[in-house]
Amino acid sequence: MSEWLTDAGGPGFAHTYRVEEELYRGRSDFQEIRVIRNADFGRMLVLDDAVQTTQRDEFIYHEMLAHVPLLAHPAPQRALIIGGGDGGLLEEALKHPLEAAVMVEIDRQVVDVTLRFLPEIAGSAFDDPRARLIIADGIRFMREASDPFDVILVDSTDPKGPAVGLFSEAFYADARRRLRPGGLIAVQSGSPLYQQDLIRLVRTNMGKVLPHISTYLATVPTYPGVIWSFTMGATGGDPTRPSEEDVARRTAGLDLQYLTPAVFRGAFALPPFIARDLGIAG
Amino acid sequence: MSEWLTDAGGPGFAHTYRVEEELYRGRSDFQEIRVIRNADFGRMLVLDDAVQTTQRDEFIYHEMLAHVPLLAHPAPQRALIIGGGDGGLLEEALKHPLEAAVMVEIDRQVVDVTLRFLPEIAGSAFDDPRARLIIADGIRFMREASDPFDVILVDSTDPKGPAVGLFSEAFYADARRRLRPGGLIAVQSGSPLYQQDLIRLVRTNMGKVLPHISTYLATVPTYPGVIWSFTMGATGGDPTRPSEEDVARRTAGLDLQYLTPAVFRGAFALPPFIARDLGIAG
Repeated sequence: MSEWLTDAGGPGFAHTYRVEEELYRGRSDFQEIRVIRNADFGRMLVLDDAVQTTQRDEFIYHEMLAHVPLLAHPAPQRALIIGGGDGGLLEEALKHPLEAAVMVEIDRQVVDVTLRFLPEIAGSAFDDPRARLIIADGIRFMREASDPFDVILVDSTDPKGPAVGLFSEAFYADARRRLRPGGLIAVQSGSPLYQQDLIRLVRTNMGKVLPHISTYLATVPTYPGVIWSFTMGATGGDPTRPSEEDVARRTAGLDLQYLTPAVFRGAFALPPFIARDLGIAG
Repeated sequence: MSEWLTDAGGPGFAHTYRVEEELYRGRSDFQEIRVIRNADFGRMLVLDDAVQTTQRDEFIYHEMLAHVPLLAHPAPQRALIIGGGDGGLLEEALKHPLEAAVMVEIDRQVVDVTLRFLPEIAGSAFDDPRARLIIADGIRFMREASDPFDVILVDSTDPKGPAVGLFSEAFYADARRRLRPGGLIAVQSGSPLYQQDLIRLVRTNMGKVLPHISTYLATVPTYPGVIWSFTMGATGGDPTRPSEEDVARRTAGLDLQYLTPAVFRGAFALPPFIARDLGIAG
């Protein structure tokens, strides 16, 4: 009888995956790390029983968290990634003509394990001369560092364990101080189906330090709840509406698998039931 | 220890729901019918272990299958629904100023059970004087009936058991003969994540009898695969692009929870990985 991995969503709801093969299991200082192989989704990175990324659908989450804010900025030069140990976000960010992309990941073992078992997610991103990997606590880095950035991306796990502080007002205030004029921060903010409180918390805390807050959506089949939210805060005016022509021009040749100009625009069109649940004017 | 319901997607992937309470379990001539209560999704209708609809997210599927083709037609008068025993599609269709909506469901027990345990899904649709419920085999009805329709909606289960014929060229040819000039047919066509063959089959079979085929998407959290496809065939030209102003005007006051003008438009914007898997030009 084969083992099944269960990834819980709400209290009575989970996704479950047959484990064809366990390629890795280990415990870092921060979490249990597993890599399994599944018939439907290929190799899957699992942290503390929560699926983080899979060969089959990793590009959806990574494209939407990287490119939406990078496209919302007219000409980003310097990007900072907090978390994102699998390297997928770094790879997507480096598709833009950045000068530098700094990635701060707390758990070196996640980087090492994904480079070994899921190398195609990062591709050659870590070898890019513009990339710099720092193994450190992102919260402390944000508090102590002084480098400026145009776009900050926060690719965190759920708000438990080491990630809790990444959803706090203090963290967003520190991030705000790192942003150049016109800069943006974008974070994964959970599922509007069962983490409405989390999304409201992110919007409230971010809204205390940044004038313009937008929540946008994508469908991530392997995250329970599957309708997934990202929340973006901008130092300036509404950054959510570059024209479809601009998006088309700036994504031409990037070989994106999910994001198109129409997907970019549609991501901000919250269905009424979600806008109402979150108290966002439609 | 509580029971969990497992709804399989691909070979190694399922959604699972804790059964807080089983409100009904019975076997009709066609299938096993269950109604359970779940903490996340409320009451759920389950046919042969496949979740059909839930209180929490039923409107997504029903709105997208009903309103997209009804809005793609400039002025539908007569609608036919094949399947849809829970009445959700009928309720949505009757929000339009139709003269008549005929619903042909093979399994009376599904209608009776959902009216008893999930009455808010149909609302008062079955009491609407424009509605007519026929308990019959939809395939045979389509072959033998002679009434004309502007829009035909097929709300089927997966293509196994009695539903197999609903995906055949013969069925679509019979439907074509029932359509008035300018008429459309729309069907649920499965998940582009693990039922690509089904979507291709529907597009091929429908394309043999109708000149314009469009596939559009919605996210249905309780259908495994969760990115869900609908395929529409039109007797005339491209019916997929009514203006956002038209959609806004014709949906004003309908109290829709998922579909907006931007969602309508975005639904046809297939992400590149799906368009490529299906062999549809982007």
